[in-house]
Amino acid sequence: MPLLVVGSVAIDSVETPTACRDDVLGGSAVFFSYAASFFSPVKMIGTVGDDFPTKHTTFLENRGIDTSGLEVIAGGKTFRWRGRYLPNMNDRETLEVHLNVFGEFKPTLSETHRQSKFVFLGNSSPITQLSVLDQVPDAALTVADTMDLWINIQRDELEELLKRIDGLVLNDSEAKLLAEDENLVRAGHAVRAMGPKFVVIKKGEHGAMFFSEHEMYVMPAYPTPRVLDPTGAGDSFAGGMMGHLASLGRFDPQALKEALAYGTITASFTVEDFSLDRLSAIDRVELDRRVAEYRQMLTF
Amino acid sequence: MPLLVVGSVAIDSVETPTACRDDVLGGSAVFFSYAASFFSPVKMIGTVGDDFPTKHTTFLENRGIDTSGLEVIAGGKTFRWRGRYLPNMNDRETLEVHLNVFGEFKPTLSETHRQSKFVFLGNSSPITQLSVLDQVPDAALTVADTMDLWINIQRDELEELLKRIDGLVLNDSEAKLLAEDENLVRAGHAVRAMGPKFVVIKKGEHGAMFFSEHEMYVMPAYPTPRVLDPTGAGDSFAGGMMGHLASLGRFDPQALKEALAYGTITASFTVEDFSLDRLSAIDRVELDRRVAEYRQMLTF
Repeated sequence: MPLLVVGSVAIDSVETPTACRDDVLGGSAVFFSYAASFFSPVKMIGTVGDDFPTKHTTFLENRGIDTSGLEVIAGGKTFRWRGRYLPNMNDRETLEVHLNVFGEFKPTLSETHRQSKFVFLGNSSPITQLSVLDQVPDAALTVADTMDLWINIQRDELEELLKRIDGLVLNDSEAKLLAEDENLVRAGHAVRAMGPKFVVIKKGEHGAMFFSEHEMYVMPAYPTPRVLDPTGAGDSFAGGMMGHLASLGRFDPQALKEALAYGTITASFTVEDFSLDRLSAIDRVELDRRVAEYRQMLTF
Repeated sequence: MPLLVVGSVAIDSVETPTACRDDVLGGSAVFFSYAASFFSPVKMIGTVGDDFPTKHTTFLENRGIDTSGLEVIAGGKTFRWRGRYLPNMNDRETLEVHLNVFGEFKPTLSETHRQSKFVFLGNSSPITQLSVLDQVPDAALTVADTMDLWINIQRDELEELLKRIDGLVLNDSEAKLLAEDENLVRAGHAVRAMGPKFVVIKKGEHGAMFFSEHEMYVMPAYPTPRVLDPTGAGDSFAGGMMGHLASLGRFDPQALKEALAYGTITASFTVEDFSLDRLSAIDRVELDRRVAEYRQMLTF
């Protein structure tokens, strides 16, 4: 099934306690697309300035990702983010953020893109996400990400979005903020009660929790000794998850649970190097091997 | 197989964001014994003052726990701890701690106790733990807990202990401190390399990690919406784990993995009320039902 993602395309600079990397490819739509491409064809919608290196677009196209929806704004600058990870590698601080052309992002989907059945609304303003939703009336599964900024400044629009999407993916602190509850189990149920059929709470190195009307479970992160750069882990998780669902063409409870496992394992590779360096160094066989190891790990 | 635990017996006062409880039964040996008693007979070694209410001893004895090793010091006062949990219910601050008779704890085991095959050394000074180890020369499985205090002030003795025990259970911040590594996967392996055949890192609401020479895995905590008081969760975890192993009389990899699951589920009940209120309200059937649910949760 065709999978569509709308989100940011960025140039990241990352500082960690052991290494730094300037001007690497990043952004939610990029990590999502690359992760999903292990499982399913992906179409990416985003915007960049004409400073965006052609090599990045070529890199994504060579991977088979449809970048026809990547708008290049003449004279514009690409979204830039600079962040620093704390020694625990789970918490980070944003040092610089320049939205640039992403600040004016108003995606208009082509006829082909409008027919997408599986749609992921990467983190952007709920207003933008709602406008995309209006353009994919035939979607079978719509899932969105969000962040604390929108919970704080566009709560009404976010609540409208929640009533219209099938799934929401957000991190633990965002879930607590949105639900106003410090207990993640209660928070997850509360967010689900706001509209979506299911909610996935990402807990970084501690894994993910799933909430639907009849189910609630938690899956640990795959424990890797090599955490070089966690940037993009959440989007890779969502990409692996949605990619698996799109490849199956269904999203029943069993498919969703497998999808969470695939998302978990895909993200576990992302953090093992900067940008897409690790993901682009593995193949589906290696990914499946780790999924099998993970399944064994959880069997007692 | 007979299971022996040596540790603290305490009177706790606990403050949480929603409730307070003064002067309730606590201590590592108490939580451990009660948790283990779901699975196996337990013998408890500890010390209290003559202020220790008889009803607590009766409560433990009625549960079938052998308290013949509980020494009552005439004129002495029982170990007291007062703590406050932060709104996240995972972090806490110690408001008061009075070691009292526990500060002079020098356990001397009876002939029967010396023949124990499964031994748990609850958190106390490594010197005390080593002296107990000397008294159980025929033990088949010895597991110890420790804490940051001993890592900081009795590191040499702790390192000696690590060379002599089979297993170590400690929490995540302690593992990072002991290994001097912020990555828990690497920290776990590093601690295991200090001597014990296996290491279990407790991550509170995020579950537990297991390390042996040939195995490494992580198990999530059981997600309960009702967290009233996390005090004793770690000792309940260890009690459920060791109780299961003692009931099997073996500790091969499969038994250890099951034991971690039993420990996880036992602890998930402990946090649902103050002191032993929740654990004493359930039976083995209810515990096994949650274990089955947990197993299902981890199957994809």
